[in-house]
Formats: sequence, C-alpha cells, structure tokens
Amino acid sequence: MQKESCDIGLIGLAVMGQNLVLNMNDHGYRVAVFNRTVSKVDDFIQNEAAGTQVVGAHSIEELVAALKRPRRVMLMVKAGETVDQMIEHLLPHLEKGDIIIDGGNSHFPDTNRRTKDLAEKGILFIGTGVSGGEEGARFGPSIMPGGNPAAWPHVKEIFQSIAAKVEDGSPCCDWVGENGAGHYVKMIHNGIEYGDMQLICEAYDLLRAGLGLSADELHEVFAEWNKGELDSYLIEITSEIFAKRDEDGAPMVDKILDAAGQKGTGKWTGVNSLELGVPVTLIGEAVYARCLSAMKDERVAASKILTGPKHSAAQDRAEFIEDVRRALYCSKMISYAQGYMLMREAAKDQGWKLNFGGIALMWRGGCIIRSRFLGKIKEAFDKNPQLTNLLLDDFFSRTLNEYQASWRRAIIKAIEYGVPTPAFSTALSFFDGYRAERLPANLLQAQRDFFGAHTYERVDKPRGEFFHTNWTGRGGRVSSGTYNV
Amino acid sequence: MQKESCDIGLIGLAVMGQNLVLNMNDHGYRVAVFNRTVSKVDDFIQNEAAGTQVVGAHSIEELVAALKRPRRVMLMVKAGETVDQMIEHLLPHLEKGDIIIDGGNSHFPDTNRRTKDLAEKGILFIGTGVSGGEEGARFGPSIMPGGNPAAWPHVKEIFQSIAAKVEDGSPCCDWVGENGAGHYVKMIHNGIEYGDMQLICEAYDLLRAGLGLSADELHEVFAEWNKGELDSYLIEITSEIFAKRDEDGAPMVDKILDAAGQKGTGKWTGVNSLELGVPVTLIGEAVYARCLSAMKDERVAASKILTGPKHSAAQDRAEFIEDVRRALYCSKMISYAQGYMLMREAAKDQGWKLNFGGIALMWRGGCIIRSRFLGKIKEAFDKNPQLTNLLLDDFFSRTLNEYQASWRRAIIKAIEYGVPTPAFSTALSFFDGYRAERLPANLLQAQRDFFGAHTYERVDKPRGEFFHTNWTGRGGRVSSGTYNV
Repeated sequence: MQKESCDIGLIGLAVMGQNLVLNMNDHGYRVAVFNRTVSKVDDFIQNEAAGTQVVGAHSIEELVAALKRPRRVMLMVKAGETVDQMIEHLLPHLEKGDIIIDGGNSHFPDTNRRTKDLAEKGILFIGTGVSGGEEGARFGPSIMPGGNPAAWPHVKEIFQSIAAKVEDGSPCCDWVGENGAGHYVKMIHNGIEYGDMQLICEAYDLLRAGLGLSADELHEVFAEWNKGELDSYLIEITSEIFAKRDEDGAPMVDKILDAAGQKGTGKWTGVNSLELGVPVTLIGEAVYARCLSAMKDERVAASKILTGPKHSAAQDRAEFIEDVRRALYCSKMISYAQGYMLMREAAKDQGWKLNFGGIALMWRGGCIIRSRFLGKIKEAFDKNPQLTNLLLDDFFSRTLNEYQASWRRAIIKAIEYGVPTPAFSTALSFFDGYRAERLPANLLQAQRDFFGAHTYERVDKPRGEFFHTNWTGRGGRVSSGTYNV
Repeated sequence: MQKESCDIGLIGLAVMGQNLVLNMNDHGYRVAVFNRTVSKVDDFIQNEAAGTQVVGAHSIEELVAALKRPRRVMLMVKAGETVDQMIEHLLPHLEKGDIIIDGGNSHFPDTNRRTKDLAEKGILFIGTGVSGGEEGARFGPSIMPGGNPAAWPHVKEIFQSIAAKVEDGSPCCDWVGENGAGHYVKMIHNGIEYGDMQLICEAYDLLRAGLGLSADELHEVFAEWNKGELDSYLIEITSEIFAKRDEDGAPMVDKILDAAGQKGTGKWTGVNSLELGVPVTLIGEAVYARCLSAMKDERVAASKILTGPKHSAAQDRAEFIEDVRRALYCSKMISYAQGYMLMREAAKDQGWKLNFGGIALMWRGGCIIRSRFLGKIKEAFDKNPQLTNLLLDDFFSRTLNEYQASWRRAIIKAIEYGVPTPAFSTALSFFDGYRAERLPANLLQAQRDFFGAHTYERVDKPRGEFFHTNWTGRGGRVSSGTYNV
C-alpha cells in the first residue's frame, strides 16, 4: 500500500462503518480501513468493497501510515470505553494537528471531555452524530459534527459531500458547536426518534383496535399518510413493513415479538431533561413504553387478571382514521417543541450557540426522523430566529388549534377501547398545560408550605418574594432550610 | 456542661433539626446541639428549647465532648458537600465505634460511598430518611435508616422511640438495608409524594373546571374523601388548605402563585427509573408537571395564542365527584405499584434485601405520604411476600377492575374540558399497557430492524433468538454492531 495516499482512515467495520466507507469511496475519497478483529478487514475488502479504492490495514500503524497529513481518523466503534481505548491506541502514531473523529453514539459529556483532553495534546477532536441507519450511511446520512472548531475545515468537504442533500442541494451537515454539541444534538435526534416511533405504534394499535384493519389495509393507510403532512421516512418504512410477508405468506409484522429493545440514547435524553428541568414528557413516555413492552411475560400474566372495557368498533372509518392521523401530527408537534425546549436550555447550560433552524435542516434529510415536517420547523426559525417556542409559531398554533378536536376524539376512543396511548396522552396534557394561564400548582405550593415550610410566591406580589403561612396555628418561627422535598 | 452526659448530638438547627431535638427530649433523651452559625444554638436554647434538657455546644469539640460513648452524632444539614465537610470536621474528634447519622435528603450513591469510606476508618455510618415535615419531626416522623448494620443496635431505641407509631403501636422505623438503602427508600418515598401531590392537584383542577366548586366546597369534598379509602395526610391537609383564609377573607389558596418548586428527590427517582429501565411514568409526569408550572410567564403568553375546547359543566355533580375520586385512587395504585417495581429492581441492582411490607409499614404513619392505603400494601405483602407486582394482588386488581369505568370517564371529561391530567392519563395508559398481552412494539422492532438491522425476536420462536429481515431487498449481510439507537 502506498504511504500517505489515503484521504481518511476509518476504524470499525460494523454496518455503519462499512457503509460510510463505501459512501466516501463513491464520492472520490480514498479510505483506509481497520478493524479490531482484523479478519473483518480482508473480508470487507474482498466482498462489499471489492472493486473500490478502499485500502485495508492490518494494524493501526499501517492505517495511520496510509493517511495524508494532517491525518483524519474516524472511529465507528462502540460508544463508551472502546472509544477511549481506540484513542489511546491511536495517539502514539499521530502528530499535532491530526484529527480524530468519533462517529458513534457517544454520550455528550464524554465528547466534552475528549475534545478538551485531546486539545491539550494538540489533537483536534470531533464528535459527530451520524444518522440514517444502514441506507443513510451508504447513500447520504445526516451528519451532526461538534467538537474542536479548528478541526471543522479539515473534514467539512468530506462530510458535506457524503451527507444527504435536501431539494435545493443543501447538505444535511453543518457545524453544530463546540465540544459535545454534535453528539448532544444527535442525542436529541434519537430521543425524538423514540417519540416518533412510539407515536406510530400508538396509531397502529388504535387503528387495529378501532377498525380491525389488516396488514394490507394498514399498509395503505400509512402509504396514504406518507403523501401528506406526515410525509417522512418512518411513516414510509412503516407502510413498507406492513406490506412485507413472511415465508408462509403471513404479514411479517405479526411474527415479531412485541418486546422493544433500547440502547440508551432515548434514556439519556430523558435523564438530561430531568436534570435541566425541561418537561420533555413525550420522549420520557416513549422510553418507558419500551421498558413496559419488554416486560412481556409479566404482561401476559397480568392480562389474565386485569380486565379492560368492552367496546364496539369505530363508527365512521374515514373520520376515525383522520382523527388518528391528526392526533399523531399534533403529538409530533408537541414532541419536537419539547425537544427544542431542551436544546435551548442545554445551549444555555453548556454555553453553545446552537442554530435551531440549521439543526432542522440537518435533520431534514438523511436521518431516521427526516420529514416534510422538519421543513416547517426550519421555516419557523427562518421567520423568527428568536422564537421562544415552536408552539407559538403561526403554523404550529394554527394547526394545533384546528386539529385538536380530532386529537381529543382519538384519545377518548383509545380510553374507551382500553388501548394505551401514553405518548398521545402526554402530548395533549402538555398542550393543555402549556396553554394554561393557571395550573393547579398553587395548591401544590400550599401543600409544600403546609408540611415543610417551603414558602410560596403570591399572585399579588412580585416574583421572587417568598411567603410562609402558619397553616395550622401550631408550628414554629422557622422556615425550611434543610428539609427540602 | 457535664462531659459525656448526652445520649446523642445533633448538628444543624433548621426546622427539621430543631423539631427532632425536641422530639428526642420529649422521649427522655439528653441531646447536645450545634449549628454552624453558632448564634442559632443560643437562640434555640433560649426559645424553642427553653425548659428542656437540651444542651447547647459552641463548637464541634464541645459537642463531641458532651456525648456518651460510643458517640452518636446526627447531621441535619444540607445534602451534598456540606455533609462531607461536616464529616471531615467531626472525624478528628471521634474514635473507632462512634456513629455518624446523616438524616438529610442525601442521594443514595453518596450514602453508599460514605458508609464504605467511614467503615474503613472504624466509624459506623447511617444514612436515614426522615419524613413528616415540621410536625412529623416534632411529634413522630417516619424514619428509614440504612448504612452500616453494626450501627443499628446503637440507634434503634432512640429512633423507634421518637418515630411515629401505627394503631398497634409498631414504630414507623425499622432497618432498611445496607449502605444507601435507607436514603434510597426515602428517595422513592419522596418520588411517590410528588406523584400523590400531582394527583390531588389534577383532581382539584378537574373539580374546578367541571363544577366550578368554591374553596369551601372543595374543603368539604376533600374532608369527605379523607373519611374513606383516600384517608391520608395529604388529603387531610388539602382539605385544611381550602378552609384557610387570607387576611382579607379570601381563600388563601387563590393567593398563591401556580409555580411549583422542587429540590431534586423526585428528579432523582425519575433518573433512577430511566437508568434501571423501569416505567415509573407517574412520578416522571409529576416532576415534569412541576417544571411546566414553573414556566408561568411563558404559559401566560401561550394562553393568548393556543386555544382550548368549549365545554359545559358536568351534568351530575355527585357522579362527577365520585368519578374524580376513583380516578385519583386508581392512579395512586398505579403510582405505588410503579414505585415498588423500581425498588424491586434497585434491590437486585444494589444487592439489598428490602422488606417491602416493612417499607409500607414505615410509610404507614409519620411521613407525608402516610395513608390508610399503605395498610393495604402491607396486607398484600403479608399475604404474599413474593408478590411480583402490587397490581396483581386481589385487593388492587379487584378495585382497578371495578373503578376503571369511573377513571376513564374522569379523564375523558378532562380531555373535553381541556384540563391537563398528565398523571391520571399516564396511570391509565400504564394500566392498559400492563394488562396488554400484546402491545404494538412488534412494529417498533420491525422499524428498528428495518433502518438499523437491530434484529428482533419472534412470537413463534424461543426468547433470546434474534432474527433479521432484509426488508428492502437491498442492504448488506451485516447486522448492527455499532449503530445502536
């Protein structure tokens, strides 16, 4: 192999790594590859990469030696310790100004730490989200890079070449921000993906319960939805899934066990939202719904003990389907609004300058949550870059005001049918709470002051002034200092 | 002051600390007290503690010198670094076998660490939950001690003396388990408290929207509820709160701002549930509801842009009130079942042997969530100590099966009124999901396999066997290794 002949090196030949390599190759980049289980390198070169310019390396030394300077090494390995180990292995072979890119689903605090530690060693680190699954990686993913800004000019061209493009040719890849900002935005993307998938499942469950639709009919409903406002990758593949048959001719979807897996990024979003105190309820419910689905045996046992309501089928088929569609669309609006609320708070917390419209554009194509709807988010921030909350944008508020009757009807049906709709329901509760000038939290504050002398603010006094009532006529002079609930 | 004359020392004279001291004094214990702001010691001795045997110390040395051996020093200081600092200050004055008790709301991982670190130094550490607020601390709190088991015999008598007692005289205090187990159980207690408070707020909001009840009428409704199944401290104080008038004669509750505070223990419960993958949805929603309430200004602005449904008052007053009551009761069952699910998982994770019936007994009196209902939980575990899930207990399943029609009606009304009921709703979704033999997660697994080659299990194959479908006819031979959503 010719020394210093390759544009970029990639370590980690699992499905995403392989497909990114082939994508880069298609765009004229010469890629050197390495994998910890070295046999996989030859296997890849002889099969998927046969006939390409891809160069196999059998050691890290060999990989690094094959790269032009400054070297660009991209890791597509398991998030967590493996990334740190790989960086340790790489460091002795790199020199100042070389670039390491972590393209896995790393947790953003790790990326914060790595960017800083490597900067001290003169190495430029990028942590980037890559979304799009197998196909996206192969033909154009959404790429969300953050980290050391000095690294960006060195990878911009490659990344924007291989990224998905929207209609006008803009790449679904731009610089997100310093340190862990790229992985943070990818985490939010994945959380939103959890939400979107849960919403589709609830629509499916409700259509099944209300109308007893067959897989073929569901295929048609989702194909139809994909032509309108809900046009998106996840709706599209849902439609395709319902069309897929198993070897015996039965719908494939009916053969699959209803126990969902998860790998942590949705959970991270939930944890982060709790830590920052932002009510990202829909993603939270979506994560919990996966947890509950995984308790399959316990559910089967419970189904024999706990009963549900008796119900008859939905009356008007077309109206019911439209109610469910609108419920899905409205809930989706709430979910994205919550995700954006969280990003806004995180940007404050971490000192990032996030370009919210730019993020919508990055997600507009290539990634799993790509959709026509993201164009509406982009438009909202184009109209008003200082927009406090998506729900206050004209398009969003108009749609919610108009569609809410359907949304409410769909959930009421779910309650009557005994179909669980945690995501639809939490979205509506959030909507009704968010637009509530007055919530019942005054009672909650009274309770806290009653039992714990926690004090409260008053409606007739300025914010920031705190009062305590001696509710019982007993109790002392002392307000709570230590005891905090 | 006489050397080595006191039974226990207490540091931290905020509201909880003061009241615990007076409680111990009432039970014949001689207590030495110290506070970082030393003037508070004299202030306390001359006022609240006037005429008692309580001894004031003006330094940690003086405090420790006043104690019988082995010394027992209880900290009632702010959770977090202050506890570590206090321990550091104390250590030079203590000897092997002395006991430090942390009675604040410490996070259980800190208590795990402190128990271990202090054991290495020969100091016996206890981290204990103390609940009951001001009044509980004064006249009988619920006490949940964990930590170093060798310390328990030295504090058992004092703790069980000052703790609340249930009808048969059993103290609401028993050994919970090693290391952070006591603070863990207190954390769950607080999480459940968040849930209970949110449920009461939703009932209040719904009664207000559906019937326009006045504060006096609400006082009566809650007083009535407190005579039945819902008999509990929080319902009782809610009733009292509605009766309380401001100086101008208007209901006090209407003067209080609807922006709830929080101090972290509910959030910790949510984070822990996500980390352990247990769907503790109701506490999660309760925490988020507080976050949303705190966004008062944004809500006021949104209320002018986002509209709600038009609705008329509830038809049958008595039926509506009963529906709301049952919705509250059923939702409460779900919340406690979820809390117990989480404790079960945590016990596995941490190697604790938790006595679930004993925990219900500890919560039965003294603490903020004390209720008649906790007796039912105790009974359920007495009948079957191996009970997988509270919802499968006879009493629980019978009540849920019978009351669910009301529960559903109440939420449907909320949806029609535009009243947010995140906790009622998530509880019902959990109920309908938990009793679902089949959830729509088969579609979710199909999606994950479609875009990420994540594989799935099949309904017609044993668990643990994973399959991948080439959904599109494109794509490679490789299943996902790296790319995990």
